[in-house]
Amino acid sequence: MKIAIAQVNSHVGNFEGNLQRMLAAVETAKGQGADIVCFPELSIVGYPPRDFLEFDDFIRLAEETVEKLAAATNGVAVIVGSPSRNPMIEGKDLYNSAYFLAEGKVQFIQHKTLLPTYDIFDEYRYFEPAHEWNVFEYKGKRIALTICEDLWNVGNENPLYKICPMDEMMAQQPDLMINISASPFAYDHADERLHVMRTNVARYHLPLFYINQVGAQTEVIFDGGSLVLSPKGEILEELPYFEEVIKTYDLNAVMTGGPEVLQPKEKMPLMHDALVMGLRNYFGKLGFKKAILGLSGGIDSAIVAVLAARALGKDNVRVILMPSQFSSDHSVNDARQLAENLGVQFDIIPIQSVYESYEKVLEPHFWARPFNIAEENIQARIRGMLLMAFSNKFGHIVLNTSNKSELAVGYGTLYGDMCGGLSVIGDVYKTEVFELARYMNKDGELIPENIITKPPSAELRPDQKDTDSLPEYDELDPILYQYIEQRKSPEDIVEMGYDSLLVRRVLRLVNINEFKRHQTAPVLRVSSKAFGMGRRMPIVGKYLA
Amino acid sequence: MKIAIAQVNSHVGNFEGNLQRMLAAVETAKGQGADIVCFPELSIVGYPPRDFLEFDDFIRLAEETVEKLAAATNGVAVIVGSPSRNPMIEGKDLYNSAYFLAEGKVQFIQHKTLLPTYDIFDEYRYFEPAHEWNVFEYKGKRIALTICEDLWNVGNENPLYKICPMDEMMAQQPDLMINISASPFAYDHADERLHVMRTNVARYHLPLFYINQVGAQTEVIFDGGSLVLSPKGEILEELPYFEEVIKTYDLNAVMTGGPEVLQPKEKMPLMHDALVMGLRNYFGKLGFKKAILGLSGGIDSAIVAVLAARALGKDNVRVILMPSQFSSDHSVNDARQLAENLGVQFDIIPIQSVYESYEKVLEPHFWARPFNIAEENIQARIRGMLLMAFSNKFGHIVLNTSNKSELAVGYGTLYGDMCGGLSVIGDVYKTEVFELARYMNKDGELIPENIITKPPSAELRPDQKDTDSLPEYDELDPILYQYIEQRKSPEDIVEMGYDSLLVRRVLRLVNINEFKRHQTAPVLRVSSKAFGMGRRMPIVGKYLA
Repeated sequence: MKIAIAQVNSHVGNFEGNLQRMLAAVETAKGQGADIVCFPELSIVGYPPRDFLEFDDFIRLAEETVEKLAAATNGVAVIVGSPSRNPMIEGKDLYNSAYFLAEGKVQFIQHKTLLPTYDIFDEYRYFEPAHEWNVFEYKGKRIALTICEDLWNVGNENPLYKICPMDEMMAQQPDLMINISASPFAYDHADERLHVMRTNVARYHLPLFYINQVGAQTEVIFDGGSLVLSPKGEILEELPYFEEVIKTYDLNAVMTGGPEVLQPKEKMPLMHDALVMGLRNYFGKLGFKKAILGLSGGIDSAIVAVLAARALGKDNVRVILMPSQFSSDHSVNDARQLAENLGVQFDIIPIQSVYESYEKVLEPHFWARPFNIAEENIQARIRGMLLMAFSNKFGHIVLNTSNKSELAVGYGTLYGDMCGGLSVIGDVYKTEVFELARYMNKDGELIPENIITKPPSAELRPDQKDTDSLPEYDELDPILYQYIEQRKSPEDIVEMGYDSLLVRRVLRLVNINEFKRHQTAPVLRVSSKAFGMGRRMPIVGKYLA
Repeated sequence: MKIAIAQVNSHVGNFEGNLQRMLAAVETAKGQGADIVCFPELSIVGYPPRDFLEFDDFIRLAEETVEKLAAATNGVAVIVGSPSRNPMIEGKDLYNSAYFLAEGKVQFIQHKTLLPTYDIFDEYRYFEPAHEWNVFEYKGKRIALTICEDLWNVGNENPLYKICPMDEMMAQQPDLMINISASPFAYDHADERLHVMRTNVARYHLPLFYINQVGAQTEVIFDGGSLVLSPKGEILEELPYFEEVIKTYDLNAVMTGGPEVLQPKEKMPLMHDALVMGLRNYFGKLGFKKAILGLSGGIDSAIVAVLAARALGKDNVRVILMPSQFSSDHSVNDARQLAENLGVQFDIIPIQSVYESYEKVLEPHFWARPFNIAEENIQARIRGMLLMAFSNKFGHIVLNTSNKSELAVGYGTLYGDMCGGLSVIGDVYKTEVFELARYMNKDGELIPENIITKPPSAELRPDQKDTDSLPEYDELDPILYQYIEQRKSPEDIVEMGYDSLLVRRVLRLVNINEFKRHQTAPVLRVSSKAFGMGRRMPIVGKYLA
């Protein structure tokens, strides 16, 4: 038997688009001699479909699409993920299901048992867990079909669930395991995934085909990296990250085993490629082509410009330099140099005259009060407004350039530098921004060296430096990481050797700035804990605030 | 036995504040001769605590607070809600628990069984459901203690759950039921609540004490309205809405029964009072006093100004009139009249000079392109920026004045009229805005009649009317309601008699504007489906888009 992995990039709610993509994949797999083609979890509807699942009409369209795909299974079978209706009165109305389609119709359905409900996942919001587990037979092989999390309850020290679906299925003596997934990317997630799949094979001594979603849906990025494991646990294939792939495997060869084939897993290339795909898919799935951003001469906007040019093509990226009276000459020169290196359209719009027009109308009301954050923010907001004016006039999406460190401590201006349709690097700490810039320059100086080496500054008042308001980033970022990704307490972090007052101050800044993050653009998620849908905090909360 | 209902307003994460509030309530109840004082669900930590629950340190503080409250139970017992740790390795780390405290310590704990995971609720994200049900005895009475949703699985035609905790507890022959809740307000929710509680009493023939949270946590509003039911199902007490109350009842009198006492449940007074409390609590819990908003002469900003003056006091509200060249004289006069009627500070800042400064710097880039949405939005954004400048200079929170109809179809300017720290009427349709204005004027003309009767206009270009871009609101709002609150399909809505093209156009507008709503301030929730945490939609979704 020959099994094809179709690592495809579905689009949430785009039933016709998803169907066409799948029909093409089925043809490709047939050309490769496949007997069965496997698509990822919920790939009929795209993952995560979120509250669209509450619309009966959406489910009806999903069912129709499954029927249409089933109609194309002449000479080849298909496994695909889609919701199905729960016929019982009690419980949630839907299951998260894996369909086996052959000879023109639905032959078998297995529902998902373990429903992740943490971080970005809300599956228990929509789905009833499976209470029955069956193996099905095709061309003489008994197949144990599971969905994503269903395989993740083995080998854990702190299991989230009480049931292990594969344990239940083993009673029916399967010959192989197929797992269809929508397992999101995080830069440090790949090794855990390999470990979990190896643990399953070690426990059940069966070959395993693991088919993962690829592509981004708004903030959530799926990396692909689908796997084929021999019954001995050898990883015979790890498909490329961030690419659609259709590839067919001979089950006999998989049973025999062979040498391991693994993708490299270095943090910077992974992060870089994830962000490029995330950016590209956000534009592509919304039907937009052109991006605009403000180039300040700083490192954050620099790396966003590079990512945008790589994701969208340099002809689709426009940058605006908006110096004020506080901008240094080198900032303008550095920004201009970067724009020239990238070959993107750039314009210079000094903002001083607009700033003065605000000063004039506010003077009767602000009279005699000293220059403070109000005036700093006016500058940042003028820049945001100019970018939005271009967006409205020419149809660009504005790219937000805030990094994770700034978002964490609220070092940014709402409706100013925090504006934009997509936060490209809002899940990248400032120290990682520097690493990413170095990585981008590995084959030559794309980002002018001066942008990387000068001290970070918002340039909103004379001689301002980030360190006037914040600790050094190499001190700040590890504290943020412990609090945000690791959910450590202040006491735990102090015990690691950080200054107690500093820790309190940083954690307080994080918590009192929820109101700002609430109004931020969606953040491309590349870590295990990004701001946005995976981190849900009360704005009026008083803890550590 | 005398049982006190302590309908208190907890504050998420404010352990010390919550403890002090509870200790005072215990004293009050003791003064009323109570044997036992009952506080709402999770009232030690505030509801909903959201991802704070993932911090071990947060749970430790909750445990300490329970201990401190237990220490105060000399001569009176306490029932209170707080998380507790799951000692099993499998499953979620926490339970949502009801504690019975007496004689200085924790005597009994019952966990919550039915964990709402829909709309604003994420309980399965954090909690393991109860698998054991016990009744406890106090002063000779056997008490069945349940938490909120635990009582909501009776009398449903489409039950969400398979278990009914009270059915399990009946085997232990309880004498009375106590249910501690955090059941959020919606203007049409009260009757269902009464029905559910009556259904429980009809099934179990026991008296019922239902203790509900009061107060707002960011967008979620709890109305209180705690209940006492006789074993015959008479509602002997429905405590006031939107107020903290501590009141003690004699169980013998409750057993005997008596006449029903119910609060009025008219939509406009409920919505009005909910919004006033929501606004007041948002400021109070964040530690802010002063609000600012732009007064356009339109009805939306008018009713927000009235709500703010009532919630915060007129001396804490400042309004700015920001006319442009497109503003009509009557708008300015109407706004000024309203400010005078309310007695709030007002200033007039014409924006034309600032607008022209933008025109000038953009002219080389926009050359020869016609006036369009770009120029309209510049005006709205100048107003947003001026309000934010006051906020930054003087410490006001900017109030957002967008209504639900505008938010739904994207009729608003990001970073312009969509700015602000709190969306006060973002869950109030435009047709309801008119009703609310009429209600506010019931005792005399507070809002100038002209504001209510003139055709709605954004006044961003000459002679603009909302109906240039949108259908009439009395046609638009019912379509929105069917789609948003009722989750109907376009076909369903057309079948109700609405024009097919119009329905498609409206639903498409709703779906393509998710990106705008993503960046909106938290919306005070007064309906069964508000924009924000209770409605989770993919931005890149293609369904009906």
